[in-house]
Amino acid sequence: MPSSWGKIFKVSTFGESHGESVGVVVEGVPAGIPIRLEEIQKDLNRRRPGQSKLTTPRDEADTVRVVSGVFEGKTIGAPIALIVNNQNTISKDYENLRTTFRPSHADYTYQVKYGFRAHVGGGRSSVRETIGRVAAAAIARMILKDDLGIETVAWVDSIGPVQSKIGENYPKSREEVDQNEVRCPDATSADAMRDLILKMKEAGDSVGGTIKCVSYNLPPGLGDPVYDKLDGDLAKAILSIPACKGFEVGSGFSGTLLTGSTHNDEFYVEEGTGRVRTKTNNSGGLQGGISNGEELVIRAAFKPTSTIFKKQNTVTLKGEETTLEAKGRHDPCVLPRAVPIIEAVVNLVLVDAYLYQRAINPLWFQKWATVPEYYKDLEL
Amino acid sequence: MPSSWGKIFKVSTFGESHGESVGVVVEGVPAGIPIRLEEIQKDLNRRRPGQSKLTTPRDEADTVRVVSGVFEGKTIGAPIALIVNNQNTISKDYENLRTTFRPSHADYTYQVKYGFRAHVGGGRSSVRETIGRVAAAAIARMILKDDLGIETVAWVDSIGPVQSKIGENYPKSREEVDQNEVRCPDATSADAMRDLILKMKEAGDSVGGTIKCVSYNLPPGLGDPVYDKLDGDLAKAILSIPACKGFEVGSGFSGTLLTGSTHNDEFYVEEGTGRVRTKTNNSGGLQGGISNGEELVIRAAFKPTSTIFKKQNTVTLKGEETTLEAKGRHDPCVLPRAVPIIEAVVNLVLVDAYLYQRAINPLWFQKWATVPEYYKDLEL
Amino acid sequence: MPSSWGKIFKVSTFGESHGESVGVVVEGVPAGIPIRLEEIQKDLNRRRPGQSKLTTPRDEADTVRVVSGVFEGKTIGAPIALIVNNQNTISKDYENLRTTFRPSHADYTYQVKYGFRAHVGGGRSSVRETIGRVAAAAIARMILKDDLGIETVAWVDSIGPVQSKIGENYPKSREEVDQNEVRCPDATSADAMRDLILKMKEAGDSVGGTIKCVSYNLPPGLGDPVYDKLDGDLAKAILSIPACKGFEVGSGFSGTLLTGSTHNDEFYVEEGTGRVRTKTNNSGGLQGGISNGEELVIRAAFKPTSTIFKKQNTVTLKGEETTLEAKGRHDPCVLPRAVPIIEAVVNLVLVDAYLYQRAINPLWFQKWATVPEYYKDLEL
Amino acid sequence: MPSSWGKIFKVSTFGESHGESVGVVVEGVPAGIPIRLEEIQKDLNRRRPGQSKLTTPRDEADTVRVVSGVFEGKTIGAPIALIVNNQNTISKDYENLRTTFRPSHADYTYQVKYGFRAHVGGGRSSVRETIGRVAAAAIARMILKDDLGIETVAWVDSIGPVQSKIGENYPKSREEVDQNEVRCPDATSADAMRDLILKMKEAGDSVGGTIKCVSYNLPPGLGDPVYDKLDGDLAKAILSIPACKGFEVGSGFSGTLLTGSTHNDEFYVEEGTGRVRTKTNNSGGLQGGISNGEELVIRAAFKPTSTIFKKQNTVTLKGEETTLEAKGRHDPCVLPRAVPIIEAVVNLVLVDAYLYQRAINPLWFQKWATVPEYYKDLEL
Repeated sequence: MPSSWGKIFKVSTFGESHGESVGVVVEGVPAGIPIRLEEIQKDLNRRRPGQSKLTTPRDEADTVRVVSGVFEGKTIGAPIALIVNNQNTISKDYENLRTTFRPSHADYTYQVKYGFRAHVGGGRSSVRETIGRVAAAAIARMILKDDLGIETVAWVDSIGPVQSKIGENYPKSREEVDQNEVRCPDATSADAMRDLILKMKEAGDSVGGTIKCVSYNLPPGLGDPVYDKLDGDLAKAILSIPACKGFEVGSGFSGTLLTGSTHNDEFYVEEGTGRVRTKTNNSGGLQGGISNGEELVIRAAFKPTSTIFKKQNTVTLKGEETTLEAKGRHDPCVLPRAVPIIEAVVNLVLVDAYLYQRAINPLWFQKWATVPEYYKDLEL
Repeated sequence: MPSSWGKIFKVSTFGESHGESVGVVVEGVPAGIPIRLEEIQKDLNRRRPGQSKLTTPRDEADTVRVVSGVFEGKTIGAPIALIVNNQNTISKDYENLRTTFRPSHADYTYQVKYGFRAHVGGGRSSVRETIGRVAAAAIARMILKDDLGIETVAWVDSIGPVQSKIGENYPKSREEVDQNEVRCPDATSADAMRDLILKMKEAGDSVGGTIKCVSYNLPPGLGDPVYDKLDGDLAKAILSIPACKGFEVGSGFSGTLLTGSTHNDEFYVEEGTGRVRTKTNNSGGLQGGISNGEELVIRAAFKPTSTIFKKQNTVTLKGEETTLEAKGRHDPCVLPRAVPIIEAVVNLVLVDAYLYQRAINPLWFQKWATVPEYYKDLEL
Repeated sequence: MPSSWGKIFKVSTFGESHGESVGVVVEGVPAGIPIRLEEIQKDLNRRRPGQSKLTTPRDEADTVRVVSGVFEGKTIGAPIALIVNNQNTISKDYENLRTTFRPSHADYTYQVKYGFRAHVGGGRSSVRETIGRVAAAAIARMILKDDLGIETVAWVDSIGPVQSKIGENYPKSREEVDQNEVRCPDATSADAMRDLILKMKEAGDSVGGTIKCVSYNLPPGLGDPVYDKLDGDLAKAILSIPACKGFEVGSGFSGTLLTGSTHNDEFYVEEGTGRVRTKTNNSGGLQGGISNGEELVIRAAFKPTSTIFKKQNTVTLKGEETTLEAKGRHDPCVLPRAVPIIEAVVNLVLVDAYLYQRAINPLWFQKWATVPEYYKDLEL
Repeated sequence: MPSSWGKIFKVSTFGESHGESVGVVVEGVPAGIPIRLEEIQKDLNRRRPGQSKLTTPRDEADTVRVVSGVFEGKTIGAPIALIVNNQNTISKDYENLRTTFRPSHADYTYQVKYGFRAHVGGGRSSVRETIGRVAAAAIARMILKDDLGIETVAWVDSIGPVQSKIGENYPKSREEVDQNEVRCPDATSADAMRDLILKMKEAGDSVGGTIKCVSYNLPPGLGDPVYDKLDGDLAKAILSIPACKGFEVGSGFSGTLLTGSTHNDEFYVEEGTGRVRTKTNNSGGLQGGISNGEELVIRAAFKPTSTIFKKQNTVTLKGEETTLEAKGRHDPCVLPRAVPIIEAVVNLVLVDAYLYQRAINPLWFQKWATVPEYYKDLEL
């Protein structure tokens, strides 16, 4: 099972839902960067279960520890291993799943592919796998912020049929998004969304939705055509999140309804800065797979959670038809917790594109990046 | 510029729109496979320009030749280089683009990223880059067909606001799709689409649309969670096609409107075969990033062609504002020619997942694959 | 710092000498394999320090635990994380190394390369890094043994000027090698070697030597020309072991003294089996980078340990000349402990070549591999 | 057959001895670099056959052409394809090899591995494969020279038992090496070597030898532990050259005879420059797999050419014993032509380490690299 990702800032995650721990190894982190552990923990706290009535009651602290790659508080260029122990694992809830496939889960496909699987907690297909990515991405986030000023903010844009009224009035910070438990910065819509989620929870059913994500202050030049275009890498990263079924950049599917003359983003020169800008941003911040200096705007679709508490038809390992009613602890809606995961994978894609760009064009680095103060202390 | 792709069946393309030639090197092709050159040429013919009034008048034969990796008509396991010479290159059409950035093209971003660019024909961002992928994918297509019976068929599902009535009545073959020049197997809609494209062409404008793609006869077990999920790899591959802005698998964005109980695909046992099947296919043939034996269904959004023959505002290399009117030869709509490109990248993703699966589970191979007759001739 | 290795059976190690722990993540392990933890521990015990008077007095149990990827005793196809906690870390011994570069160590080069380094215990350049590889390789070893019958045995062939008399009378098992603490299966030479090592230890000096390694029962067909030839991959793996300065396969440097007619390995047909064999084995079991079915024979050179207890000239971080006398615990000779490390990296190279070969030629698998009984239990 | 190499400066070669052409695709080349085609051709001329009586009479111009990635004389960041057509291919010489395995060649192993092979000219195992690497390496050489001042010079150090007297009096330039056809800069030894080679040629036999290679002006900091150490990457690269059987860096095998106190390279501060230097160079310019600023010194062993014109015992595809006498055109000694190949692969390894280092430490770039004038012309 290949579980590594990235050309230079390479992450490799490990761990199942009900094993000893989950974690990540990150290669390619430059040396000398102060690791603010509380920043990593903050990101993990945003994705952990048990934060509100909207999510699974599985309540875990998800306390991270740095096992390697950091010395006296700074990175040393070595692989950084970050580990979170699993605590709240109740395997008995899963005994009936040993031989029965949950509909729209990965049980059947894992069984056929590997011939053997961990039937408890979804094993490797559990959303707990994303802990490693969120932890690694916190480091990516620091580098992007310190060197380039980039900030990435995601939010819930719709839950089922409830569409927020945010439009292009994007939230500017994660704090703004976190003002309610739905993580939709349009408070009125958030109320309706919460009501819908709780109604579904009560009914033993589930609901999906969409998340939008904006990255601010991207310099032009990130992303590597042809096969490592930023939108391609983002799409792959987003689709690798459990329950994700769709991805758009910029105008996306709705852009197919426009004509070239209304869709094209005309260039102009920004007064004051002299920077090349576009009047509109149907491109979503990317042209030819490379950032153009505008806001990077993407959208992702998440299906309704597969685990529901209604009786469903299914089959067993022996190929016999049966029915199944879920037990255990599950999110009626994954969207609020998917917000920090989306941000995480975006940051992982961006930091890798950034480091690669430093390799192929150091003059670009001199023009667009700021060398953080702590780098300057390094002795040579 | 990284231009390689795949873990085992690895393709690496090269060539710009206006250089000597474009091509591809394919590593990891098993030995002993008869290379039917006419099959490769057939796929290239389907994507070449100049096929109808709907596409660019740049008319090229795009004749492919096999430069390496094939001996006495069969693959030898060595890298296969396939090359197509460029013929119809008119560089003078592009002189005004040396210093002026075309809106919504990759001119500005390439300039910032690399510091130097080929201003003729879009250089590497030209759709001619896809020739290499289509050629390589023809080999992938043969392997998938011979070993597993897989066939992939794509078609134009909408052009601008004209939506086909195909629904889930998917076409079964490429021949069915090729019955009209729009490549939409719903003849009535195809007429309306053609009219719209021609109207746009006349107006010097352009139009986008959506393409759907189905793969038949996929065995369960292809795709490698967590970071090489089949949907992730497909999303990346699809988004790497010029002008693509969105990707969906299965229910996609519209699935976010359903509840878990209506969206889940219940399992049953197929009479006769005893195979595990699902009653619905909102999953689009994938669960947990692995094929489940149902039809693989994806959809892609293509923006309106960026090159239009209307005057647009833009800026120059020197950072001065100016206007631009396109010259040269361009598609008013890329969709019909994108159909074989979509099929190509899907086949490339599938064959790589297939070869990887042989590595990690040879018993799976014995169960799901058919050893072609020509393999059996291999000695020792 | 890239720390991953392999195309399919991919290992990624982490951890420094004086951090919390060291470990490894292994991707690409097929599912259903029973993990015999005691086998992994046995291999780690062979490489741990403190085994005899010949090695460093740093005495650690190096107890391994399986953190992920194994469920109810069997692999599930998921990444396997194996972790060993560091226990016996005495940082005060190293304070003088914060600003002083040890001659022929990696202190100066890490400082220049990364700008910041962990000065305790060599950080990432410590031989403790090899723990992860040895643990991962134990799994590789089981797969190679179970599927193909391969066994790899290394031994000390020379220490300083003391050359063993083993010649081509290679030991057949690791037990044979472990009969003395030098790990040289020629007892008389082993005595002389031990005396030399102890003499060096007493003098505060150190000594190097050579290790030979044979892999038995390799089927023909492993190794991937052109750039992943088995000898190339082995050379890289061997040279990545601390203190290694040279690599040979087959006749190696001494083969340059022969003529083609005396060096070539003539083929014959083995009676009984009908297998194609060679009369001599100057090739060392490889032709064109691919195994030919003969014994794989390699040799590695290890320099004398860099840490000695004599005063040496060196410079400081500030660029001032100074002298240094080592403190701490160090091996006067790394060779006996390098034996299991050599075997480990050879097994890692072989298993990756094996899995890749399954991908590109499943008929080869049917001819040369034995499906272990436990695989056959896999359902579906 | 994986045939690509490198993390950033990635080369992928293709082509067999007797196909249409051989070539290479190079990814990751920075943009704006003037491509001096005559420099590429010069390097190819040094490795082409037919240069003297010492080599195979197969006489080919090996004229290279740039097929992509270069626009108006400069690189554009896109993949660079370089192609050389095969001209002098005489397949009839090889008909007897269709079913007969040449001893110590890759015929048998390719047959078992792939099940099918090109029996003419060794197919992919031919030394003609190295054309692609030599061509790509010419670009690497220019970058290393322009940015860092690095120059790599290899020479024949021994032929059979004839050992040159060069010692550490290393040649400083390729011109110095090319003064005689043996490429041994010790003229007296070169005479003896030439006599030996011609004697072997006359006898229908062959001879091997060793090549040494020095890289001058390496800055400290290149090479990436743990698994991409410079010596590991060099070893793999060197061993991937046909007929190579051994690799050493610095003191190599002979260093195993020293003690730590005589082998260690003590540091001092160089007067005038203030640079940290070592008094001796047993390390061969590398410590911990990273360059230390001293000369990089490696040595490679080449076996006697396998093709000889004497009758040898062998077996057929059907498993029957037979004898074989070689026909065709072959080098009695590959060493003189291997000299530029060694330099090529060293340059490929170094340039990739250099680009990677720019990614992880841009301050290092500012300290150790010179931005060539032509870079400064790039507009941003």
